[in-house]
Amino acid sequence: MGEGFGRYRLNDEALLATVTSASIACGFHAGDPVVMRETVASALTRGVRIGAHAGYPDLVGFGRRDLAVTPSEVEAIVVYQIGALQAVCAAAGARLRYVKPHGSLYNRAARDAATADAIARAVRSVDSSLILLGLARSALIEAADRVGIRSVSEAFVDRAYRSDGSLVPRTEPGAVLTDVGAVADRALRMVETGTVLAADGSVVRVRAESLCVHGDDRDAAAIVRAVRTRMEQAGVSVAPFAQD
Amino acid sequence: MGEGFGRYRLNDEALLATVTSASIACGFHAGDPVVMRETVASALTRGVRIGAHAGYPDLVGFGRRDLAVTPSEVEAIVVYQIGALQAVCAAAGARLRYVKPHGSLYNRAARDAATADAIARAVRSVDSSLILLGLARSALIEAADRVGIRSVSEAFVDRAYRSDGSLVPRTEPGAVLTDVGAVADRALRMVETGTVLAADGSVVRVRAESLCVHGDDRDAAAIVRAVRTRMEQAGVSVAPFAQD
Amino acid sequence: MGEGFGRYRLNDEALLATVTSASIACGFHAGDPVVMRETVASALTRGVRIGAHAGYPDLVGFGRRDLAVTPSEVEAIVVYQIGALQAVCAAAGARLRYVKPHGSLYNRAARDAATADAIARAVRSVDSSLILLGLARSALIEAADRVGIRSVSEAFVDRAYRSDGSLVPRTEPGAVLTDVGAVADRALRMVETGTVLAADGSVVRVRAESLCVHGDDRDAAAIVRAVRTRMEQAGVSVAPFAQD
Amino acid sequence: MGEGFGRYRLNDEALLATVTSASIACGFHAGDPVVMRETVASALTRGVRIGAHAGYPDLVGFGRRDLAVTPSEVEAIVVYQIGALQAVCAAAGARLRYVKPHGSLYNRAARDAATADAIARAVRSVDSSLILLGLARSALIEAADRVGIRSVSEAFVDRAYRSDGSLVPRTEPGAVLTDVGAVADRALRMVETGTVLAADGSVVRVRAESLCVHGDDRDAAAIVRAVRTRMEQAGVSVAPFAQD
Repeated sequence: MGEGFGRYRLNDEALLATVTSASIACGFHAGDPVVMRETVASALTRGVRIGAHAGYPDLVGFGRRDLAVTPSEVEAIVVYQIGALQAVCAAAGARLRYVKPHGSLYNRAARDAATADAIARAVRSVDSSLILLGLARSALIEAADRVGIRSVSEAFVDRAYRSDGSLVPRTEPGAVLTDVGAVADRALRMVETGTVLAADGSVVRVRAESLCVHGDDRDAAAIVRAVRTRMEQAGVSVAPFAQD
Repeated sequence: MGEGFGRYRLNDEALLATVTSASIACGFHAGDPVVMRETVASALTRGVRIGAHAGYPDLVGFGRRDLAVTPSEVEAIVVYQIGALQAVCAAAGARLRYVKPHGSLYNRAARDAATADAIARAVRSVDSSLILLGLARSALIEAADRVGIRSVSEAFVDRAYRSDGSLVPRTEPGAVLTDVGAVADRALRMVETGTVLAADGSVVRVRAESLCVHGDDRDAAAIVRAVRTRMEQAGVSVAPFAQD
Repeated sequence: MGEGFGRYRLNDEALLATVTSASIACGFHAGDPVVMRETVASALTRGVRIGAHAGYPDLVGFGRRDLAVTPSEVEAIVVYQIGALQAVCAAAGARLRYVKPHGSLYNRAARDAATADAIARAVRSVDSSLILLGLARSALIEAADRVGIRSVSEAFVDRAYRSDGSLVPRTEPGAVLTDVGAVADRALRMVETGTVLAADGSVVRVRAESLCVHGDDRDAAAIVRAVRTRMEQAGVSVAPFAQD
Repeated sequence: MGEGFGRYRLNDEALLATVTSASIACGFHAGDPVVMRETVASALTRGVRIGAHAGYPDLVGFGRRDLAVTPSEVEAIVVYQIGALQAVCAAAGARLRYVKPHGSLYNRAARDAATADAIARAVRSVDSSLILLGLARSALIEAADRVGIRSVSEAFVDRAYRSDGSLVPRTEPGAVLTDVGAVADRALRMVETGTVLAADGSVVRVRAESLCVHGDDRDAAAIVRAVRTRMEQAGVSVAPFAQD
């Protein structure tokens, strides 16, 4: 969320009416101080919990191109981005609750322990009460345990999975799912059974404490509404993972 | 201070041995997360108080070209930069004490009440215990009073003054003073008499609660040492304005 | 045109079906090498003449905030941007025909002779056969004459005018016109009578050799179609100012 | 060369007195339009041939962190940067003679055929008379052959080699050589025998049509002078590879 920049917007504002938590871009892969302020204000009004969506310093690549940063650089850029959004929250009377790496940094943190540790250390060093949100069963979740901060595992309702629990890269066909109904079914299955069907048809375990929808998907608002409706019809209550 | 960026450094590190407070760039006109971390660590080691040197988002212009930002944009970019440096401090076990706008934003805030108010509001909204450091007798000092935060007035030992108490712009000849001895004399006069000789020879009142030397001056380290020595010889004690 | 950046697009592609010339952003206020390539390819396919829309290095401000650059800096950034787009054109088998400053640089060049001269010199120094497109009766048109390059005067169909022939700044209400029919009437009047009604009701002379519509207006495509239809109904032929 | 940016300089100017060709940064990993203009003017005065040193869009990383760009993106950013420097040259009455990728893009192009082809196509599409300068025996030299443009093979006098002819990465100890005398010996051996001793002691063939020294090395000027003196003492004449 909040992934506009200057003159640009991604129309993710509408999502805030339906989600319980919003990971807000912090100015490196997207977002600028004005967009961040607007998005925090909207989230606050709607009672949506706020997280820092920290990414690579690659605006033109939207943080979705892997960059060979060292763990030390990762720690520094995550600290910086957390602080920037914390201040935007403080100025609005809101509170930052969690941190979630973005894009290629997220994927690197899911598989690389040194990167994951750097992120977990960054979070702890700024505010050890912040939650780290990461891919279920990933190196990032393990790093949170190792470093001693709370983590929440998430599953992606709009992304294809590989049989090892990682995401099919966006550069491959079928990586992003767009059939709203199928996505809602998939989300319910994740929550009820703790599993998802991988692209190769295998059954993969996922620990879905949080369900992720990408704010820049064309049909993000429809997907979120459909997932939420399916949950409610199935008697699954939807609530933010970070308590008030 | 901390006005390097990536591969670039301005060799301002040596200054930290002699000053009592350091205004550290926050990534907009200079500085990056790694440089900020290094500079904060050095300042912490030496007991130097840390301030956020918030500037325009103009790296190629080093924040020294005026930019027609609105007060609302100013407020947003100052909040963001304060937060970024606060987190870098928190991660290092240091504490941010004050905020000082940089370059053309500083000059605009000295003369324009709306910009000054925006900066003062930004500071207060993030942390009302932060001190606002500004040009003596400027709109920024007045804004701090109006908004209800503490301010400290500073004088520039290495810059020429106009008769109205404003600085001679860098684009004019003679704007930056480089004679180390003369600068030290000037500094002592500021502190002892509360006055400075303007470029036109008139006597200008300055309230010199803090003395500024620019970290990117060629002779910055020599100037700071000379000023400090002159003060000590004259029996003037030098101490940080922000208490521990 | 071509004012997207990375993940962002402004949906200006549709305009290329209706206009005769497209001023393409060159990476400073908007645009990136990939977006530029796409836009040049589209323009080439449709026979649309290509110009370099050179702006301030202020992506987050979309080049619409005045920046205190020196004439020497202006000359350097215009040379750079012309060259970048020239190469994109060469790679596509297209040819750059003209240069038009963007946003606040355009406005500064309209009123400030030193800035205008810097732009005209930049154009001439790279390729003296390039045309300089500027606001009718502005300092930029005069600079082209002085420097000895061809200029084309343009009028803005979607912007309010002041009685002195300058544009009402975007920060003022009513600066951007959105009534498609009224805009088309206005355009025809400009061409047939060489005049436009200013915001204060006075009649202002405009030399409308080219008519400008902003690609990032919400209704840009509708405006361009309406203007073109009105011209054709009135028997005014619409053709590019740069010959093949 | 020309790897300053805004307020920053790397003091590479002195090198221009001794080298025969200068690869000038084009604004992506370093350089800005003003620095480029200054560097081109200096090179022109001294009769130094000018090349475009095109890098990744990663200013904070100085283009030395690998970035997962697609070949299509590579082609676009190389075209853009060539054009920008071509225009700076044209404005100065100079001529761009060659193109050399920078940093991590250079290394990627040395080993990855798709990246190498993208660069070679970019060069050819802008101006097929431009020479492509690349690591001896690398994929980039092969790509120039495949695409049909002239290439020149270079060797690095100040970098350690692996036994396969690639460079030891900068992140490894001993990657950059600093002993001026040893570097000069090494350079002469490269030219006289077409070989270099790799870090593991093996003898590696290198085709040294051009010898590279990094302008941002601390001792770059001393190294270049020593290499040049050693060549002259050995009766090896030093001349630019690109003819007038």
